[in-house]
Amino acid sequence: MKNPKILEQLESWIEDNRSHTILGATAKYIPALANQDPNQLGICIMDHEGELYEVGDVNVEFTLQSVSKILSFIAACDHHGLDYVLDKVNVEPTGEAFNSIIPFEIHRPNKPFNPLINAGAITVSAILPGENIPAKYDNLLAFLEKFIGKRLYMDVEVYESEWKTAHRNRALAYYLAESNQLELEVEEALEIYIRQCSISISLQDLAKIGLVIAYDGFDPISKKQIFSKEIARVAKVLMVTCGMYNSSGDFAAHVGIPAKSGVSGGILAAVPPKWHSDEQAFRKGCGIAVFSPAIDSNGNSTAGTMLLKQLSREWDLSIF
Amino acid sequence: MKNPKILEQLESWIEDNRSHTILGATAKYIPALANQDPNQLGICIMDHEGELYEVGDVNVEFTLQSVSKILSFIAACDHHGLDYVLDKVNVEPTGEAFNSIIPFEIHRPNKPFNPLINAGAITVSAILPGENIPAKYDNLLAFLEKFIGKRLYMDVEVYESEWKTAHRNRALAYYLAESNQLELEVEEALEIYIRQCSISISLQDLAKIGLVIAYDGFDPISKKQIFSKEIARVAKVLMVTCGMYNSSGDFAAHVGIPAKSGVSGGILAAVPPKWHSDEQAFRKGCGIAVFSPAIDSNGNSTAGTMLLKQLSREWDLSIF
Amino acid sequence: MKNPKILEQLESWIEDNRSHTILGATAKYIPALANQDPNQLGICIMDHEGELYEVGDVNVEFTLQSVSKILSFIAACDHHGLDYVLDKVNVEPTGEAFNSIIPFEIHRPNKPFNPLINAGAITVSAILPGENIPAKYDNLLAFLEKFIGKRLYMDVEVYESEWKTAHRNRALAYYLAESNQLELEVEEALEIYIRQCSISISLQDLAKIGLVIAYDGFDPISKKQIFSKEIARVAKVLMVTCGMYNSSGDFAAHVGIPAKSGVSGGILAAVPPKWHSDEQAFRKGCGIAVFSPAIDSNGNSTAGTMLLKQLSREWDLSIF
Amino acid sequence: MKNPKILEQLESWIEDNRSHTILGATAKYIPALANQDPNQLGICIMDHEGELYEVGDVNVEFTLQSVSKILSFIAACDHHGLDYVLDKVNVEPTGEAFNSIIPFEIHRPNKPFNPLINAGAITVSAILPGENIPAKYDNLLAFLEKFIGKRLYMDVEVYESEWKTAHRNRALAYYLAESNQLELEVEEALEIYIRQCSISISLQDLAKIGLVIAYDGFDPISKKQIFSKEIARVAKVLMVTCGMYNSSGDFAAHVGIPAKSGVSGGILAAVPPKWHSDEQAFRKGCGIAVFSPAIDSNGNSTAGTMLLKQLSREWDLSIF
Repeated sequence: MKNPKILEQLESWIEDNRSHTILGATAKYIPALANQDPNQLGICIMDHEGELYEVGDVNVEFTLQSVSKILSFIAACDHHGLDYVLDKVNVEPTGEAFNSIIPFEIHRPNKPFNPLINAGAITVSAILPGENIPAKYDNLLAFLEKFIGKRLYMDVEVYESEWKTAHRNRALAYYLAESNQLELEVEEALEIYIRQCSISISLQDLAKIGLVIAYDGFDPISKKQIFSKEIARVAKVLMVTCGMYNSSGDFAAHVGIPAKSGVSGGILAAVPPKWHSDEQAFRKGCGIAVFSPAIDSNGNSTAGTMLLKQLSREWDLSIF
Repeated sequence: MKNPKILEQLESWIEDNRSHTILGATAKYIPALANQDPNQLGICIMDHEGELYEVGDVNVEFTLQSVSKILSFIAACDHHGLDYVLDKVNVEPTGEAFNSIIPFEIHRPNKPFNPLINAGAITVSAILPGENIPAKYDNLLAFLEKFIGKRLYMDVEVYESEWKTAHRNRALAYYLAESNQLELEVEEALEIYIRQCSISISLQDLAKIGLVIAYDGFDPISKKQIFSKEIARVAKVLMVTCGMYNSSGDFAAHVGIPAKSGVSGGILAAVPPKWHSDEQAFRKGCGIAVFSPAIDSNGNSTAGTMLLKQLSREWDLSIF
Repeated sequence: MKNPKILEQLESWIEDNRSHTILGATAKYIPALANQDPNQLGICIMDHEGELYEVGDVNVEFTLQSVSKILSFIAACDHHGLDYVLDKVNVEPTGEAFNSIIPFEIHRPNKPFNPLINAGAITVSAILPGENIPAKYDNLLAFLEKFIGKRLYMDVEVYESEWKTAHRNRALAYYLAESNQLELEVEEALEIYIRQCSISISLQDLAKIGLVIAYDGFDPISKKQIFSKEIARVAKVLMVTCGMYNSSGDFAAHVGIPAKSGVSGGILAAVPPKWHSDEQAFRKGCGIAVFSPAIDSNGNSTAGTMLLKQLSREWDLSIF
Repeated sequence: MKNPKILEQLESWIEDNRSHTILGATAKYIPALANQDPNQLGICIMDHEGELYEVGDVNVEFTLQSVSKILSFIAACDHHGLDYVLDKVNVEPTGEAFNSIIPFEIHRPNKPFNPLINAGAITVSAILPGENIPAKYDNLLAFLEKFIGKRLYMDVEVYESEWKTAHRNRALAYYLAESNQLELEVEEALEIYIRQCSISISLQDLAKIGLVIAYDGFDPISKKQIFSKEIARVAKVLMVTCGMYNSSGDFAAHVGIPAKSGVSGGILAAVPPKWHSDEQAFRKGCGIAVFSPAIDSNGNSTAGTMLLKQLSREWDLSIF
């Protein structure tokens, strides 16, 4: 049953934080993203019983962008096992930008630093299960269907827009290909990667995915284990250490919730259950999805980040 | 009361993991460290009631080295408040080595990436409370005395050895000085920094410090709040994201305990209480100290890391 | 008329230097180059009257590879004027490798450092005169025909081999495309670039090209000005400062002849006339071509470099 | 006998180029330099017979700064031989700034890239002949006395100003010390280095030094060989490839005269004799000294560089 006090708080905080949208701007390098209304801010929280708290601009669909990186990582691990995937990609944070080539050229690592920088994400996309690109893409959608009970679809306009302007990702992918770190041809790996980035999702569905991650791969509503606890643990480590681009450390310190952001302005967050005995909101965990398309120079939604900061502080949601 | 089964497990695991010492070597650049017996391995765990589990080579004293970085960060925050300190040093992980100048020169940040790389640690040492170096050093010792009820002392041989060979740290400190990021003269900042690195500690005392961090600054034995929960939270974020040098991400994924290592072979770990209802060891949290001086190329104790990995897996101690 | 003493000296020096081939190896990343006999060493010198001194393995054809970079630079300048080309590419040496992305990402220059690193060479290839790739390629061949009176052709096997394995060059080109520094589509720019690298040439023809560069674009045999003195000056500056990959400075100090090397093992050198009054060999200038396919880690022919060093010392050919 | 037409031209060009001083500013990081009148511009040319052409602000004394790097390199080579010095420092240009640590940390070279970046210059200063700092400094002055027949002295105010603010040079020197590339203690090496930078010189004396370098170490007036031709050759290579900081390539292309600049606004240039038969000014070579303290972001005098560009173009002084 929905707690009315929580809704009330959320409504107040949404208004408090909407003003932070002016500190950011919509992602300019993808025309289809640039044209969104930057003033939107919406949040959707699903508690452990499936109750939904929806406040603000919640009737939206947006593309996953980098949020997809953590989902394809989980999907790849679910199919191949964690060891296989960690043999292709490391789990170390890097202080460089998500699309930097510098660490590769300086350190010549035999695998990307982590699956949440573009190089690592492309590497993981290339090993998604499936004999060819349509099969890989289909398998990813099928995997996500286990979380939300429906088939997601791709925003074709965003896909085409990204495909044409993916120069930097092509540079990264060819760099990986040169050192034999890519299991597909470059153009194929980019196709599956940009397809996954262009998957369109609602706040309600994204919150459900967050809930399953918070519950270590277990769906507390359907009571099914969707993926293993071992994978969930590494996924949450990645979200904490690398999930918010180059302000992941700051987000961990001030919010402390495993999360992954995307340049479309979406944030996926997973609040694990806590033992605290007081009458805390969401003490049995929840999934959170936020959308606000004005992003900062790191790539994170400005108002979305501030809203999560307030939630975490007020409700003591940090895992630290 | 001590649980005999736990002692038995620890004894078996110590022997399992001692062989990993051959994968490392004692730190060569500090003569006083180089000459230690690399085969040592000892662990000390203090539970929430102050019960000590000591197994292996536990009658040792070793210098804090980089373990001191998290302690001086806490001390500085306790005196100045978190905001003041975070104005001098960021909390972002970096993929570069702990003593790298590259990220500074590329990004020209106005503050070091985090207080656990050398540049950040020197910056924090420089703002320890106290009018001069002896006062700052004394205040740090006084702060640590609140955790363990006794005054620690400095290993003069190690201090002198490090002072003479601290070329790289001097390079870093002069680099910081050039961009006005250091609140002391370079040689003074280095003196307090190298002094804190040279503080000698026992496993028993280090475990107690870990317990207080695990309890968010609260000492569950004396029932005193030694430092604030807000500081403890950021300290644990730093330990998870940057505590184990350039394998912090790997350690978080496979161990998942906030920890800080030093090149002397010591590791400080803080296991927060968990809500799990099963009869888990240390479910009410504990502090862990490990010592094994053979370190890997990243600077972490090889056997110590492996031992913590086994503990975490067997007892489910990960916070993720 | 040929000076028999010079031939004698050359024959002796060829034998002296052939042993240096064992210090290098044929370029492994291009299969068609890897399979050459690494023990070959040949030189061809054309004096200002067109007299040819040919010693060693001189009946060879090899692909231009990076030697083509200086030729397409001259061709582009000849068509567009020097200012136009220098608006697209700088003339500064860089300490990084010829295919490095680091300087671009650190400094974000609005143009490549110089036309002899791959990024600069691809940029220049893209502005070769011609409406499309075949026309650009044809115009380059037509320009080279002015030097040697015949049409050069492409080694198709080398071209196909390079096209398939050009991952790093694709990475560079997409990087340039992202910052709008490329006047063609990436795949088109790469096609013209790899075509020019795959042009096959003889030592005799390459020596003639060297002679014209030595004479500031004037052909002392046909008495025609093929390109302007202004362009020749910049070309020679580039050859001295950046012509021998990352040992250009060493080559300038110990050889002092404007030169450009390629990974196929060829070196193009241009010895300008000097005022010295003594009876020096080639005091009226000459063009030199060397071929020896065993290259060092920088990409320069080992025996070829040593042979030029001996020639320069014995005959005082340095411009410094 | 002085050519009046040359004086006339120089006077006109000085006025043409003085306006370029507004494109730069005096070096801010050394207070004693910052306070100079930025509008000054003076040139002094000494021809092969010792005739002096002095135009503009010529009654000035300024500190050598980086101009001293090429002089201490020559002095060190003169004492130890070229091979000994080239064993301590390379002769390769680098695209990074003169005080960058990036190339050291990325490539971990066993010696600095060249003696004209700060790291290389400090390395060379450390091997100047002499048992201690005063002796080394005295020997450098004695060596310079051979060129100009008098003892230079140090600007104590500049020395003290630089000594206090030399944080970046200290960082570089400690970095070198860590990899055992420095033959002196860091503070000693810095003392001799900063002393040499602080030597005060007149335009007339600097022009004479340029003349001797132009004549390959031979003084055409006293008819004495001051240092060997072999050393002069490498010195000129260094001046062409690295003498004008990060616009050395551009200067070589557009001026083409071996030169070395300093942040005080001085430029030392050496015009070697040429064989051209026409009635060219200074066809028998000359030494040039320019002073104009407004420098650009690379560290080169703005008006001084433009003036040399005009001279070279009008009188065809380029060696290329």
